[in-house]
Amino acid sequence: MTHLPERLINGYRAFMDGRYATERDRYRALAKDGQTPETMVIACCDSRAAPETIFDCGPGELFVVRNVANLVPPYAPDGKHHSTSAALEFAVQSLKVKHIVVLGHGRCGGIRAALDPSAAPLSPGDFIGKWMGLVAPAAEAVAGNEMMTQSERQTALERISIRYSLANLRSFPCVSILEGKGRLSLHGAWFDISSGELWAMNPQTGDFERPETD
Amino acid sequence: MTHLPERLINGYRAFMDGRYATERDRYRALAKDGQTPETMVIACCDSRAAPETIFDCGPGELFVVRNVANLVPPYAPDGKHHSTSAALEFAVQSLKVKHIVVLGHGRCGGIRAALDPSAAPLSPGDFIGKWMGLVAPAAEAVAGNEMMTQSERQTALERISIRYSLANLRSFPCVSILEGKGRLSLHGAWFDISSGELWAMNPQTGDFERPETD
Amino acid sequence: MTHLPERLINGYRAFMDGRYATERDRYRALAKDGQTPETMVIACCDSRAAPETIFDCGPGELFVVRNVANLVPPYAPDGKHHSTSAALEFAVQSLKVKHIVVLGHGRCGGIRAALDPSAAPLSPGDFIGKWMGLVAPAAEAVAGNEMMTQSERQTALERISIRYSLANLRSFPCVSILEGKGRLSLHGAWFDISSGELWAMNPQTGDFERPETD
Amino acid sequence: MTHLPERLINGYRAFMDGRYATERDRYRALAKDGQTPETMVIACCDSRAAPETIFDCGPGELFVVRNVANLVPPYAPDGKHHSTSAALEFAVQSLKVKHIVVLGHGRCGGIRAALDPSAAPLSPGDFIGKWMGLVAPAAEAVAGNEMMTQSERQTALERISIRYSLANLRSFPCVSILEGKGRLSLHGAWFDISSGELWAMNPQTGDFERPETD
Repeated sequence: MTHLPERLINGYRAFMDGRYATERDRYRALAKDGQTPETMVIACCDSRAAPETIFDCGPGELFVVRNVANLVPPYAPDGKHHSTSAALEFAVQSLKVKHIVVLGHGRCGGIRAALDPSAAPLSPGDFIGKWMGLVAPAAEAVAGNEMMTQSERQTALERISIRYSLANLRSFPCVSILEGKGRLSLHGAWFDISSGELWAMNPQTGDFERPETD
Repeated sequence: MTHLPERLINGYRAFMDGRYATERDRYRALAKDGQTPETMVIACCDSRAAPETIFDCGPGELFVVRNVANLVPPYAPDGKHHSTSAALEFAVQSLKVKHIVVLGHGRCGGIRAALDPSAAPLSPGDFIGKWMGLVAPAAEAVAGNEMMTQSERQTALERISIRYSLANLRSFPCVSILEGKGRLSLHGAWFDISSGELWAMNPQTGDFERPETD
Repeated sequence: MTHLPERLINGYRAFMDGRYATERDRYRALAKDGQTPETMVIACCDSRAAPETIFDCGPGELFVVRNVANLVPPYAPDGKHHSTSAALEFAVQSLKVKHIVVLGHGRCGGIRAALDPSAAPLSPGDFIGKWMGLVAPAAEAVAGNEMMTQSERQTALERISIRYSLANLRSFPCVSILEGKGRLSLHGAWFDISSGELWAMNPQTGDFERPETD
Repeated sequence: MTHLPERLINGYRAFMDGRYATERDRYRALAKDGQTPETMVIACCDSRAAPETIFDCGPGELFVVRNVANLVPPYAPDGKHHSTSAALEFAVQSLKVKHIVVLGHGRCGGIRAALDPSAAPLSPGDFIGKWMGLVAPAAEAVAGNEMMTQSERQTALERISIRYSLANLRSFPCVSILEGKGRLSLHGAWFDISSGELWAMNPQTGDFERPETD
């Protein structure tokens, strides 16, 4: 007898009968030889924006950090526990990924919270408030712009925060050095849940543009 | 022209022609009505252990945190940026998930690093060393047992750390209160990359057991 | 009239009408020509782990020692009565077996006793306590790890003790010499009573792995 | 890949597809509830005389010690490692078996060695010589009787040694006390490899008699 939710047990059985059955050799090789993903993705926890789904990727392809609003904090070698920085260090220094993608998405709950800092904290610890404080200056600037609609402010901050995370990535010496040598490239992308469209950040301009898909 | 890696562009096209094409209505409803996932998963960044793949879950089903070694730090309302705690607070207080699953896996690089603290740090910040310091006492106890093989020590610490994260989850008042009321349940699971097997933690004993799947 | 338990008499009749009836010639040849088993098995007394059953072997195939927890003591030519060493000498020197398998199993009562040395002895002689004292150092190291569950400690010591017995086998000059010449090979295996799975020890790493059976 | 001998791997597969497949529930119950065998058998290592085969017994039925010539040493609470005494203590005190059967057999190599003490020892340790020294007085008396054929001397000592082991069993306080209370009964039996016949010891006379099987 297992105590996992029935939905997960059934899903696991579907995995074993489906993907695992057809990719058994791949899984065994990945176990034996270790992972060598070429890409790290920093994505949001949101249940509608799983990077493996959006990029149709299989086992071994994406090394994935997921936190609320896909944020990268600035480099801070202060001896504290840094979840995202640890993952970044491991991906870049140990796995030697070639690409890092910061993947944002529309209707992000973390971004919505950042735009409304007057809301009552969810808990005494106010972890969401503290975490989204990482983009507080940008959030304040956008939230104060009453000429944009709420939806426009939301999308604007979603995209600003992707550019902010990319800038913070470059504050890590290992990232900026390898990027300078041409051995690591950084990317931004934004997923529109409703239309399914992926908007890629133009590295020259910082604009988000739909890739031409034909 | 886009600057995303070609593999990701091709994968995204496969997503648009496949999953999105057949689930367009679901995506639109998820965008319009918001997400209401019943389950939060705390998983590892490892490219071989994506929870959506292992549980064969679609958009809207799993709210997912991924960090190195699927760790939950203890409750610490100290005003600092806490990535995992913020996601936990959002999932429990705002989304009101019914289940939290800590999903570990075999051959975890973070656990391997924890078992070998004498290894040279990957960077001056030593973010992996600091992050895995969360399980340092357990790592020391296991690493000192030279009668177990390296692989046995690794599996032992992978499972100890899942139980440790579950204990830390319960140090959050919102989690322990809701669990006490029967409105939230906690689960542990461990994925064997090679065999594809999922071992579920028995909540009474803490042991990991394969669900009987027939 | 016989005084043997009725179950054994009935079982013996089933043997005579079944296996013996169909293998009469084999038994006669084995009586006339003597036994020439290729494999010695050192197994536990446990009623759930008979090697002939697990390996589906017939008469003449396995030379079997069974003691509590399938232990081999270290080589000690001290003139005392050594049950296991005598059997080993006979199998290797006289029968010239080609393989020795140390077969452990899950939920072993002897191992459980070793992990709880503070338990009251079963008898004034405390034969179990003394016998399991052969693995006392390993038992102490494992028993002290309170972060592992009782079941995990049990499995760990079951496997450590198999490796310990294999090391002790090699302390017998006749074993190490013949192994060095390639005329004798040593194996470890662990049987999971519940699932029926046999885990074979990888001779390079000492890890126990399920043979791929398809 | 496994390193076990191919014969054993094939036998194990036959077990899994056969006995285990049909007795899965029994194995699971035996794992969950523990073993409760009613009978302990002290048998020989000989490959032709497995008690599970001769008594057609399944998992959970027989707790089995096997040593060369199915010997029980006398009670000796001297703090040394005693393989057979430990198993006896465990069976009687912990498992509370109701029957103990000493099962000898024809053409026993250990008995043959005991009858020929002038043979060169198999190894410098001479473990067989020391072990069979347990029945040395009986062996000398029989070996010196030149009016019996070699085969008669062999059978005679095989049966004497069964009675000797039964007497030693009664030197253990726990055995004699429980036998006196009628909660434990002792039996002797001798298996004829060639004919497949089982001869049971008459507890009144000590004679070995073929049970009437119809």
